[in-house]
Amino acid sequence: MTKYVYFFGEGQVEGSGEMKNLLGGKGANLAEMISIGLPVPAGFTLTTEVCTEFFKNNQHYPDGLTDQVRHAMSKIEELMGKKFGDPQQPLLVSVRSGARASMPGMMDTVLNLGLNDQTVQGIIDQSGDPRFAYDSYRRFIQMYSNVVLEMDGEILESILEKMKEDRGVELDADLNAADLKQLVELFKKKVQDELGQGFPEDPEEQLWGAIGAVFGSWMNQRAITYRKLNDIPAEWGTAVNVQSMVYGNMGDDCATGVAFTRDPSTGENYFYGEYLLNAQGEDVVAGIRTPQPINNLKHKDSDLPSMEDVLPECYQKLVTIRETLEQHYREMQDIEFTIEKGKLYMLQTRNGKRTAKAAIHIAVEMVKEGLIDEKEAVLRIDPDQLDQLLHPSIDPAAEKNIIAKGLPASPGAATGVVVFSADEAEEQSRLKKRVILVRVETSPEDIHGMHAAQGILTARGGMTSHAAVVARGMGKCCVAGCGDVKIDYEKQQLTTKSGVLVKRGDMVTLDGSAGEVILGDVPKVQPEVSGDFANLMGWADKFRRLNVRTNADTPHDSKVAREFGAEGIGLCRTEHMFFEGDRIQAVREMILAKTLEGRKSALAKILPMQKSDFLGIFREMKGLPVTIRLLDPPLHEFLPQTDDDVAELAAVAGIRFSEVKEHVEQLHEFNPMLGHRGCRLGISYPEVYDMQVQAIMEAACELVKNEGFEIVPEIMIPLVSHVNELAVLRVNAVAVAEEVCRRYGVKVNYLIGTMIELPRAALMADKIARQADFFSFGTNDLTQTTYGLSRDDAGRFLPDYIERGVFVRDPFVALDKAGVGQLVRMGCEKGRQTRPDLKLGICGEHGGEPSSVMFFHDIGLDYVSCSPYRVPIARLAAAHAALAESE
Amino acid sequence: MTKYVYFFGEGQVEGSGEMKNLLGGKGANLAEMISIGLPVPAGFTLTTEVCTEFFKNNQHYPDGLTDQVRHAMSKIEELMGKKFGDPQQPLLVSVRSGARASMPGMMDTVLNLGLNDQTVQGIIDQSGDPRFAYDSYRRFIQMYSNVVLEMDGEILESILEKMKEDRGVELDADLNAADLKQLVELFKKKVQDELGQGFPEDPEEQLWGAIGAVFGSWMNQRAITYRKLNDIPAEWGTAVNVQSMVYGNMGDDCATGVAFTRDPSTGENYFYGEYLLNAQGEDVVAGIRTPQPINNLKHKDSDLPSMEDVLPECYQKLVTIRETLEQHYREMQDIEFTIEKGKLYMLQTRNGKRTAKAAIHIAVEMVKEGLIDEKEAVLRIDPDQLDQLLHPSIDPAAEKNIIAKGLPASPGAATGVVVFSADEAEEQSRLKKRVILVRVETSPEDIHGMHAAQGILTARGGMTSHAAVVARGMGKCCVAGCGDVKIDYEKQQLTTKSGVLVKRGDMVTLDGSAGEVILGDVPKVQPEVSGDFANLMGWADKFRRLNVRTNADTPHDSKVAREFGAEGIGLCRTEHMFFEGDRIQAVREMILAKTLEGRKSALAKILPMQKSDFLGIFREMKGLPVTIRLLDPPLHEFLPQTDDDVAELAAVAGIRFSEVKEHVEQLHEFNPMLGHRGCRLGISYPEVYDMQVQAIMEAACELVKNEGFEIVPEIMIPLVSHVNELAVLRVNAVAVAEEVCRRYGVKVNYLIGTMIELPRAALMADKIARQADFFSFGTNDLTQTTYGLSRDDAGRFLPDYIERGVFVRDPFVALDKAGVGQLVRMGCEKGRQTRPDLKLGICGEHGGEPSSVMFFHDIGLDYVSCSPYRVPIARLAAAHAALAESE
Repeated sequence: MTKYVYFFGEGQVEGSGEMKNLLGGKGANLAEMISIGLPVPAGFTLTTEVCTEFFKNNQHYPDGLTDQVRHAMSKIEELMGKKFGDPQQPLLVSVRSGARASMPGMMDTVLNLGLNDQTVQGIIDQSGDPRFAYDSYRRFIQMYSNVVLEMDGEILESILEKMKEDRGVELDADLNAADLKQLVELFKKKVQDELGQGFPEDPEEQLWGAIGAVFGSWMNQRAITYRKLNDIPAEWGTAVNVQSMVYGNMGDDCATGVAFTRDPSTGENYFYGEYLLNAQGEDVVAGIRTPQPINNLKHKDSDLPSMEDVLPECYQKLVTIRETLEQHYREMQDIEFTIEKGKLYMLQTRNGKRTAKAAIHIAVEMVKEGLIDEKEAVLRIDPDQLDQLLHPSIDPAAEKNIIAKGLPASPGAATGVVVFSADEAEEQSRLKKRVILVRVETSPEDIHGMHAAQGILTARGGMTSHAAVVARGMGKCCVAGCGDVKIDYEKQQLTTKSGVLVKRGDMVTLDGSAGEVILGDVPKVQPEVSGDFANLMGWADKFRRLNVRTNADTPHDSKVAREFGAEGIGLCRTEHMFFEGDRIQAVREMILAKTLEGRKSALAKILPMQKSDFLGIFREMKGLPVTIRLLDPPLHEFLPQTDDDVAELAAVAGIRFSEVKEHVEQLHEFNPMLGHRGCRLGISYPEVYDMQVQAIMEAACELVKNEGFEIVPEIMIPLVSHVNELAVLRVNAVAVAEEVCRRYGVKVNYLIGTMIELPRAALMADKIARQADFFSFGTNDLTQTTYGLSRDDAGRFLPDYIERGVFVRDPFVALDKAGVGQLVRMGCEKGRQTRPDLKLGICGEHGGEPSSVMFFHDIGLDYVSCSPYRVPIARLAAAHAALAESE
Repeated sequence: MTKYVYFFGEGQVEGSGEMKNLLGGKGANLAEMISIGLPVPAGFTLTTEVCTEFFKNNQHYPDGLTDQVRHAMSKIEELMGKKFGDPQQPLLVSVRSGARASMPGMMDTVLNLGLNDQTVQGIIDQSGDPRFAYDSYRRFIQMYSNVVLEMDGEILESILEKMKEDRGVELDADLNAADLKQLVELFKKKVQDELGQGFPEDPEEQLWGAIGAVFGSWMNQRAITYRKLNDIPAEWGTAVNVQSMVYGNMGDDCATGVAFTRDPSTGENYFYGEYLLNAQGEDVVAGIRTPQPINNLKHKDSDLPSMEDVLPECYQKLVTIRETLEQHYREMQDIEFTIEKGKLYMLQTRNGKRTAKAAIHIAVEMVKEGLIDEKEAVLRIDPDQLDQLLHPSIDPAAEKNIIAKGLPASPGAATGVVVFSADEAEEQSRLKKRVILVRVETSPEDIHGMHAAQGILTARGGMTSHAAVVARGMGKCCVAGCGDVKIDYEKQQLTTKSGVLVKRGDMVTLDGSAGEVILGDVPKVQPEVSGDFANLMGWADKFRRLNVRTNADTPHDSKVAREFGAEGIGLCRTEHMFFEGDRIQAVREMILAKTLEGRKSALAKILPMQKSDFLGIFREMKGLPVTIRLLDPPLHEFLPQTDDDVAELAAVAGIRFSEVKEHVEQLHEFNPMLGHRGCRLGISYPEVYDMQVQAIMEAACELVKNEGFEIVPEIMIPLVSHVNELAVLRVNAVAVAEEVCRRYGVKVNYLIGTMIELPRAALMADKIARQADFFSFGTNDLTQTTYGLSRDDAGRFLPDYIERGVFVRDPFVALDKAGVGQLVRMGCEKGRQTRPDLKLGICGEHGGEPSSVMFFHDIGLDYVSCSPYRVPIARLAAAHAALAESE
């Protein structure tokens, strides 16, 4: 006979924590707690196989199930000293679903099952509290009618509301026992009216009704859709847990509470928790009564009596349980407990949520305590959590007047006066004012303003919009896509959805981690990269194989990144340098030139500036590799768009307005992302790339010759789709590089490689590798083209896609391993097929996202490259990947 | 001893036509001609292995080569009765390169080699013509100095020019023998001055100099780059051909000519050709003298004496040769011949170029004659050629005043008065005027004007711009991307680069096959789809496996396509229907609606119109499958863009201008191609797709119920990147379809499938197939995303890419088999892995391009779908593919 029912109760546990597939997550956890000797209210689990059989056999239960349930129930009765359906000592139970993983749409919980007009008397006798008994009874009817009998919850709720109105009271708690008793009558009558049959009085019938409802909910529409979208087979089924009820609200020898085995906000190693006397679990959360501390240890900032003082015996038991839990789980636990008439019951234990700071402190301490080893400590820290530690943040205790919410585009917090243009940001900043730059959206022309500002707020664009990407790169806080604000450039003001008006010069604070816009200044907490942090990162570095580089375009960024542990530059975007100061004029002159000579003379002005950039960056990165990407964006990005700006340019350049205007219009593109950019520019205007290669090589030669440098510049050609593009540009670059080396009389080694950022490049990587010394996967553009999805435009529907589960995650945030990842893997394999020593890296935004970093480790990349501020995250994620592999 | 030299001469041929790899193309052909008994001037070929050895051994020739060359030379001397370097009976030779395929950058030809101050006397004696001898001599020095000695050709040319000036003559031919003799002296002196060494007098030295130059040119920069871009290994090498010279200009028993074994313009089976007495080959081409017909057969529209009359013996020999050639090659041949002192020499034979009409006629006739079978006849016709037959064209005899050139975007020719707006095109057309619609570029809003116009001219956009694609779909002639014209909408005129002004109402003619804009009207030739054509297509249909469907959006297009042999509709774009007449108002109302109810009420207006479209199309395609794509383009394409149009819409819709304007701006996208379109709209606004499915199913049900129809609508969901998108939309579509069937009380079978037009869809095809009854590859968008290349913007650099050989072909014209093709193949394989019965087709522009059709056959698609006017092309290409496979 198949075993369909697993009993759990003190000393008699049949399941264990490993049996999640059979018992579901909840059932397995309950079994595990008992098996390590914790006092848990007795109960039993109907296995997921019952569910499977149920649907296989046209919604009939397998033979023998009824007997097994009856047998398990009698064991509960024995242990708890009560009897299901007994009018004197009635046993009440809860019925809960429990699949392998929790799932929306599934029936959740029915409490107090077993109550009827007879057993409620027993509860009154047991508790001596008719109000408690009737309150439990009416709650049971409400819950059961709703989730089992599928009545609209509003129907009974409105009766309750009407009664409170009649009685002139506001809270449910203000109704007395008589009221509640009457409510039970009214409820039952209403059920009869609505459903044409009475509310079930027989506890057995109630029980099977609830069990059937749980199983039935496995096949409801919402659950089916969820499984379809998440690729969960219907055959998994759900388990059902039946457990005896315990009550913390039966008198002053009763209590309920929650606790953490260590301090969840600092990680300090002491017992931290709260409880309430004579209360139910929900009272602790609801905030109607102020919870009391469980003990008298430090941080007790309450005058209320502690549990240690009030219920010392139970408290001591809890302290012992804390030890047991930490020894067993070797992790900080978050527990729930209830004390019924002096007897302590554990309702739940799970790994406790904590701040990043606490997580690191706990992990490092546990290594010292010998509970875990360094590997486990490293694995304990979610790399994404580190982000909290690397930026200033709003003081959690501060009062905030939040006036709008947008996307948390770049973490950190910043305060300043509002300005609406990049030029003004720069100007105000020169006057030592802290500014917040507010734009509908940003473009490369705003870079200088973004540099000058403390933070950036945009009304449009997603997590990977220009503002978001650049701000993250700069480690600057940013709230993007804030549809709540309407910006009026003309009036130099913004209005929020709720009607708040913010004018130029008004002070606001941005919380880039929460996506909040706050009126006025707010106190902040500075990041503390403590000794624990350094310890942990040291262990991580020991384990990882993947190198971690950074994306940096300036000497400053390079320095910051090196301090964060970057081992080179994986992406230096030369075009960012084109926007600074007077350069943009020379760049525009180059674009507007009608002849090769005109372009060359403008490029000659840019050359020394680019060279000095590279000198600075090479010095900061001495001894480390630096990958420099040649010009990538389409030329129109460098030209002004408004008529005023066009007029200004025309005046400066001494060209007629109409001519400039025409040029701007000629360069207009329908889909700039797929336009005349990257290596396509290099082929149309070889002189541009030639100038850039010359600047790179002159800088390198000069340093090698004069300063005894070790440097291997890696020249990267973007947007290659066909090997011929690279072949042509490689010939050009080599010619320039060799000429420079000859001129300086030094030999500088350099590599020439390409971005793999178009599907075709990945598909043809074997051919392309013939012309490349290295590949760097540009997963931003690769994601855009593989999905056919513009990251600048995706904001309109992507949030909805994710909310509805059509996409599990935003593919611009976490690499889409199944799709885009297939191309990356293909690119690696094909590339190394042709050239086994091919250097492989990735420089998209995903280089700093942990799940993506793990994937990049798995497919054998040499390095990832990410924003300076995400370098520690990538280091830790790389260690996770290496450790996962060695398992 | 390896054989390095292959001799050819009457009765002594050592090579054959199959030995192309060893002898190169030219050498193999010469050997083949001799082996079938044609009189060819004797010569020999140095094999490609010599070239390979030469470069392997540091530019030294292999041992024994000199002996083999000397031996071969003596055999020439024997056959020709002359001697190399002999002052009395000098043998002169030509030296030519000959790789497997011709290659730019390679040394081409040196003629008259063997001349020096002694041998020129022998030529004078032989020919009795000192002018002829010295002219040959000075030409030899010029050619040799340039290609072998690498002197700038201008240097000697300028001496020649100066002499003509001194002599007061205009043509080279006006210089006499003494002049030419002096020129030889001047040339040799100049060579001495420039190079510091005399012009080689020794014929042996000349010969080895020329051979070395040919081999050397295999490794010149241009040839290397060409090989690199075209993936030709350097190891292939080139051959060198040395052949004795013969002269058609040594007197009146000499002649030269070219001929076709059948008429190349009609295909008629008679001998057609021209010759000149006492002339060189280049004289026939140069047009200084009028060539004479070779015989007196029909179409002799010349009074000049024919070769049949003047040199009857030689003519009879030529007639015999014609028979031999046709029997041997079983193909119409294009031949070159020379008669030296009464002896006929064949210089070349190759398959003759011909018109499409001729090609078909010849193929069909040759089947009747038993020369070839039906399979071969089908294979003989280049499917692309058919295009000529399916559209009217400019009369080749007509005079044309070409005022501008653009891209030949859609074939055919059309004349009309110029209009600058779609509305006026429609208006004028209603007044029975024939119009040419001229736009900077077209958008979906211009469709009604394009329908009304005879032809379309645009200043911007490439071969796959909106104008080009739509025009080809309509079978309407179009010249696109005509940068030569500047359009001024305000003044309602255009100006060409050359300054011609064309005003509204002026008459122009477009030649869409040549990309020409012609002033005024020009006579045209109507297409003649003759009996031969029908015969051939019938044979093609017997052999092909691939089905051919059409892309059609209207009953009219459907009808045309069916007449051209379409076997169903592979792509019916519902959005084209959204632009017609009053519909656009309802569509805009739908887009501007702020609530679901608002959208639904607007959709209710569109429903009956869409339904009537489908009724019409289903009736035309009775019994055949019809694939209907649900709404694809982003919504902003349906909204007006200019302020005037916005104001009009605001007035009609009764909404404030600013509100409409804001809505238009909100919908603006950076990269619409990658934006909120396709199934993404279906997920955001399910009511739109629901309406479309309802219209499709109501039309189908009505026909099945009332008209006894057989129809299986195939509902196609565009732009899917993730299976979940399709899963969600499939559930919606099935619900609507089932509801309609229930309502009508009939059972209509329908399929639900998806476009595979994004790289991710191909990569994840195994998953997507779980939700799809069919796949249709959208290779236009797939090419755009795989290359990261917007076809609307590619015009700026793609022509340059193709000209320079970076891309071999425009990937929007011919499918990129290596890259995009990989994804299509992957999509097929993965799709069928999940669902072996999955129906597979393709509906991009490539469906009508022969090389692409062959690829689609190879990977096992069920059908291709193309513009109505390309259906015969696809049918023929499909037959080619099937026949190639069965080989």
